[in-house]
Amino acid sequence: MSETLDGGEAVARTAYRLSEVIPIYPITPASAMAEWCDQWASEGRPNLWGVVPDVVEMQSEAGAAGTLHGATTRGALATTFTASQGLLLMLPNMFKLAGELTPAVIHVAARAVATHALSIFGDHSDVMAVRSAGWAMLAAGSVQEAADFAAVAHAATLTTRVPFLHFFDGFRTSHEVATVEIPSDDDLRALIDDGAIAALRSRGLDPDHPTLRGTAQNPDVFFQAREAINPFIDAVPAAVQTVFDQFAELTGRHYEVVGYTGAVDAERVIVVMGSGIGAITEAVDALTAQGERVGVLQVHLYRPFPVAALLAALPRTASRVAVLDRTKEPGATGDPLLLDIIGALTMSDERPMPLFIGGRYGLASKEFTPAMAKAIYDELAASAPKRRFTVGINDDVSHTSLPVDPSFTTDDADLRAVFFGLGSDGTVGANKSTAKIVGEAGGTMAQGYFVYDSKKSGSMTVSHLRFSRRPIRSTYLIADAHVVACHQVGLLDRVDVLAAARPGGVFLLNSPYAPERTWDRLPADVQRQIIDKKLRVHIIDGHRVASEVGLPGLISTVMQAAFFLLTDLLPPAVALDALRASIRKTYALLGPRIIDSNLAAVDLAAERLVELKIPDTVSGPARRSAVPADATDFVQRVTARILAGEGDLLPVSAMPVDGTFPTGTTRYEKRALAQEIPIWDPDICIDCGKCAIVCPHNAMGMKVLSPDDLAGAPDTFATKSFNSREL
Amino acid sequence: MSETLDGGEAVARTAYRLSEVIPIYPITPASAMAEWCDQWASEGRPNLWGVVPDVVEMQSEAGAAGTLHGATTRGALATTFTASQGLLLMLPNMFKLAGELTPAVIHVAARAVATHALSIFGDHSDVMAVRSAGWAMLAAGSVQEAADFAAVAHAATLTTRVPFLHFFDGFRTSHEVATVEIPSDDDLRALIDDGAIAALRSRGLDPDHPTLRGTAQNPDVFFQAREAINPFIDAVPAAVQTVFDQFAELTGRHYEVVGYTGAVDAERVIVVMGSGIGAITEAVDALTAQGERVGVLQVHLYRPFPVAALLAALPRTASRVAVLDRTKEPGATGDPLLLDIIGALTMSDERPMPLFIGGRYGLASKEFTPAMAKAIYDELAASAPKRRFTVGINDDVSHTSLPVDPSFTTDDADLRAVFFGLGSDGTVGANKSTAKIVGEAGGTMAQGYFVYDSKKSGSMTVSHLRFSRRPIRSTYLIADAHVVACHQVGLLDRVDVLAAARPGGVFLLNSPYAPERTWDRLPADVQRQIIDKKLRVHIIDGHRVASEVGLPGLISTVMQAAFFLLTDLLPPAVALDALRASIRKTYALLGPRIIDSNLAAVDLAAERLVELKIPDTVSGPARRSAVPADATDFVQRVTARILAGEGDLLPVSAMPVDGTFPTGTTRYEKRALAQEIPIWDPDICIDCGKCAIVCPHNAMGMKVLSPDDLAGAPDTFATKSFNSREL
Repeated sequence: MSETLDGGEAVARTAYRLSEVIPIYPITPASAMAEWCDQWASEGRPNLWGVVPDVVEMQSEAGAAGTLHGATTRGALATTFTASQGLLLMLPNMFKLAGELTPAVIHVAARAVATHALSIFGDHSDVMAVRSAGWAMLAAGSVQEAADFAAVAHAATLTTRVPFLHFFDGFRTSHEVATVEIPSDDDLRALIDDGAIAALRSRGLDPDHPTLRGTAQNPDVFFQAREAINPFIDAVPAAVQTVFDQFAELTGRHYEVVGYTGAVDAERVIVVMGSGIGAITEAVDALTAQGERVGVLQVHLYRPFPVAALLAALPRTASRVAVLDRTKEPGATGDPLLLDIIGALTMSDERPMPLFIGGRYGLASKEFTPAMAKAIYDELAASAPKRRFTVGINDDVSHTSLPVDPSFTTDDADLRAVFFGLGSDGTVGANKSTAKIVGEAGGTMAQGYFVYDSKKSGSMTVSHLRFSRRPIRSTYLIADAHVVACHQVGLLDRVDVLAAARPGGVFLLNSPYAPERTWDRLPADVQRQIIDKKLRVHIIDGHRVASEVGLPGLISTVMQAAFFLLTDLLPPAVALDALRASIRKTYALLGPRIIDSNLAAVDLAAERLVELKIPDTVSGPARRSAVPADATDFVQRVTARILAGEGDLLPVSAMPVDGTFPTGTTRYEKRALAQEIPIWDPDICIDCGKCAIVCPHNAMGMKVLSPDDLAGAPDTFATKSFNSREL
Repeated sequence: MSETLDGGEAVARTAYRLSEVIPIYPITPASAMAEWCDQWASEGRPNLWGVVPDVVEMQSEAGAAGTLHGATTRGALATTFTASQGLLLMLPNMFKLAGELTPAVIHVAARAVATHALSIFGDHSDVMAVRSAGWAMLAAGSVQEAADFAAVAHAATLTTRVPFLHFFDGFRTSHEVATVEIPSDDDLRALIDDGAIAALRSRGLDPDHPTLRGTAQNPDVFFQAREAINPFIDAVPAAVQTVFDQFAELTGRHYEVVGYTGAVDAERVIVVMGSGIGAITEAVDALTAQGERVGVLQVHLYRPFPVAALLAALPRTASRVAVLDRTKEPGATGDPLLLDIIGALTMSDERPMPLFIGGRYGLASKEFTPAMAKAIYDELAASAPKRRFTVGINDDVSHTSLPVDPSFTTDDADLRAVFFGLGSDGTVGANKSTAKIVGEAGGTMAQGYFVYDSKKSGSMTVSHLRFSRRPIRSTYLIADAHVVACHQVGLLDRVDVLAAARPGGVFLLNSPYAPERTWDRLPADVQRQIIDKKLRVHIIDGHRVASEVGLPGLISTVMQAAFFLLTDLLPPAVALDALRASIRKTYALLGPRIIDSNLAAVDLAAERLVELKIPDTVSGPARRSAVPADATDFVQRVTARILAGEGDLLPVSAMPVDGTFPTGTTRYEKRALAQEIPIWDPDICIDCGKCAIVCPHNAMGMKVLSPDDLAGAPDTFATKSFNSREL
């Protein structure tokens, strides 16, 4: 049965069912997996064998790794979840677990490691930093793969005795909502080798049958003992393929340790790991349709590296190969996957060495699109391709970057919609609900990806929703949307909301202005785009509707209903009924008043949604510049662009080399997100001072003055006499 | 001025002088460096600028790394010392330090990371596990290089802003005593760029000129900012070569980021990093003297990898290259240095790709000899060389190991001596003193290497001392000794002490037996070796001499004097005077009685040393087997060989695959190290029970019995009545 959920929940579902001990410590973007397990355990949900796993939160990821080591050494089935620095803290224990051939699984929502700056976003720098430790590494490239590989990792660690690190791209996969199949309990039962569990138990430390682990070895025997592990390592690629094949028989979803898509006689091949496969596959399909001899290898098992499978999968015609790494290893002669692939080709004489080039992409969730994939194929066709390159940025310093033609697009989802909201305004939650309603109605698959700012509440969120009757492989943001919705009118002034609107598309605006007054309030740029792209503009005063139904500030149900009414994803009546059912379920714990108010919001939304008549001429105010003209050069050149949502366009030369920034720039970020502002009324002030203490934005300040100090103050400067025991 | 000291002290001398903040946390084999700094700071010794560094012991290596980050970010010159898991705990901070372009130095006595077993011994698995972090990595291959590269690392980190990890092989280099030159204060002053220090200060966080570090970056700008560091990384190889060249002008000791030794037209080349260079260089000299076209590349700067220097140093005639790694990365297509070297060759079209093979050696201080180097050159000449191999072990499981001909030897030191003692019996300390006395007398260089057991006190120590008028490059144990000394007669029964004795050499034995009774007490095997090798045997009753001068149990001065008398390293009178001076200095803090007793020991040793007349026939007892015949199969096959000092001969198949050992095997290790044994005398017993409490070996037990329980006890079972308030 299809479900529509995100990668983290999909993985946690299976990891939970296959574990007895789950030590956890939260770190973005892996926290949700641990939180799901914690919740399910608190609810008494059993695992596959009818036992509620022990979910235990430790003091740090180092403790979680120690618990994993201890539990598995005792013979338990155990797993944990982590990312980034959390994974680094597990490294010493990971060496032990692998050296002792102890089955265990770590699920990693792969994330950038903090360097010049922290980033909570996705790349492979964390998993690559622990690749020395001797773990098997299984790389999923989509929510469906993550859902499936979670099961494969738990099955394969038991049969191989090699611990598995299962990873998938943080946010892009861990937080992407998609319509997928979750392996059933029966699938898992068939996949897990009971004999291997029994063997694990029998090896478990036991005072009745004591054995010694963790010895100290001297130069005489350590080296020999270290090589004794080789047969276990060497057996892993075939063992994983065996589990993949079993899995295919059970579910119909077939995977290979190294997969290939493209022309059978490809000359130019890209090698990739993780979610980049989606964008590249779309490019390959488009290019091969034009007769180009290109293809892409997807590495599912990175370590132990499946040399034979790689050689078998790489077309013999491939004379030029670009290996992509989503990590940066400064000072290496190539990033890790590149070096492993080249190394594999030197392990036999079987074939001549192709020309290898290595590219870096997608650091910290930097966009990676089919146009960038095409740029790489173009580079491979060049007479002297760059041996090491970057793609997705403008590197005007080291000149590593490839030129990209953004007009190359392949996105073919039936309906694409982009929503602009603010953190905590309910937009993201409503969009997840929309994806779930449509995805689980059957027939249409949904994909939701949500661009957050690490500033969280009050900062801009952009939701990218795709709906399609064909599988959705587009692992990048929507640039060509049938619907653009702006849930916060203030954003029109700050960012280019309509850049992604497709000509002839729909623009849904939450407008606090009456229909007849709305047009003239829109910034001139926005008006010009509406006219030029011939957008149909629908508005609704979401805040008014929400207030009227008793949900002041909570606009999400209003906007969700409006979206359903403007699209034909489901027949309107069906859509609104599904939305009502979803409301009853979502707010069940909040009581009937909240449910009734939300149901009323749905009805009122249908009444209040109106289409604007679009004039031929631009009449609105010019958009304000992001920062004042007297701001420093750095703020003008860099900060202002970032605030305007144009950070992607900043070249390498714009960035500080060592992560050092000027201070005092918060003042330039006018978020203008408040619906209401506080005003001090001296007549009713009781001198408690709480207004100044409580305001998180420091909008209210208070100071005790002598009347003399007020000489020369403007008339509007409000004061009152102050009563205090201390004065 | 030459000094004779170990690698750790040599490095600490310079690191201390060039630092202001030294956060430390002890871990073998790096502890001594931190301990020296701690001691010098407590003595008020100033650094190069007249300030006593802040030496602060943290709660773990993670704290030391955090302090390093904090201190350097404030603009201080800072360093620390670590190894193995300690280095792994520093990894998160290392990424930050490198990303923020913060000058800092970590000196690493490189050590195995614990996997199937812990090992305190040396290899590169720790430094390789942190190679993702973006630090420059400088590899020293000898005590002299470590002494010099310490200065180079501190100088180069300041000019490049890239933090430096300076590493050298744990024990083999960190604990090798050698006669070296230490860079003088003037050298250091000339080498350190004052402008770079001023620039570091000016970048330091300062509330008067605030800047922001440690931002959180989103997908829009992180990637560009990460690439902004490239010019700094790219500049490092040339910058290090510049410092090397300056250093050569100051000291006459010239280094290259990639050095080459061997035939200018070499066809077969080995690439290596660390102390293995010594053994390989000896092999190269011997083989090229026979006309073989071989050579060796020594990588001094591993990261950022000096691609241009590698291509320049590798002879264009080299068609086959073996890259050696002193680490194991299970599941990679090659160990790290191999992959980086292959990657370097793919970065340009400048030359055709040689055939590359990759070898692993020396894990956890496994021996690496010129014969093993020759085995690698032989493999390179094979028609189909193994693409991945091991050397130094017998891998009868995966068949990766190369055959080695032990008859290929190149050790040409003028005097080679091997000493067998027990931990804490003073043998190692006396040998270090001997090396120092000879090395600092001028003209002759000394080398001391000490094989310890991680069981420390009471376990066997073997000291390997070389003395030569030519530089000593032999980075391996002595197999062909002019002098073998056995300071503990009991060892003759357990290990093959005379295996390393050169025919016609000297055997010095600390014998508790009178000269006329000694021969018959020697095990038959030992007698046979003495006769066959025509050894001259000198004995002295070290324990008796020590007791007579009032130093019961402290035999080291006696044996040291005997060694000087049996060799012509220095004229006897000069040697003994130097020894007396050393005694006065070493024991200065212990007072005149200890000094006088040691001086008396020197005189008495000269009187009591006698040469044995060697009969023609073997008369001694057979050596006892290490374990009883009823021991388990595993104990017979494995434990017994390890106890007999033959662990090096165990093949891979003998070792457990996962580090799991049987328990209860301590009983088989009869160390027989006590000079005296306790005997309970019931007649003088006062029932205090302290004998049983105090005995660390549990040799005295006590139990309260009723007289009835004694029925059937043997007559020798001693008892007495027991008085106790409680009974």
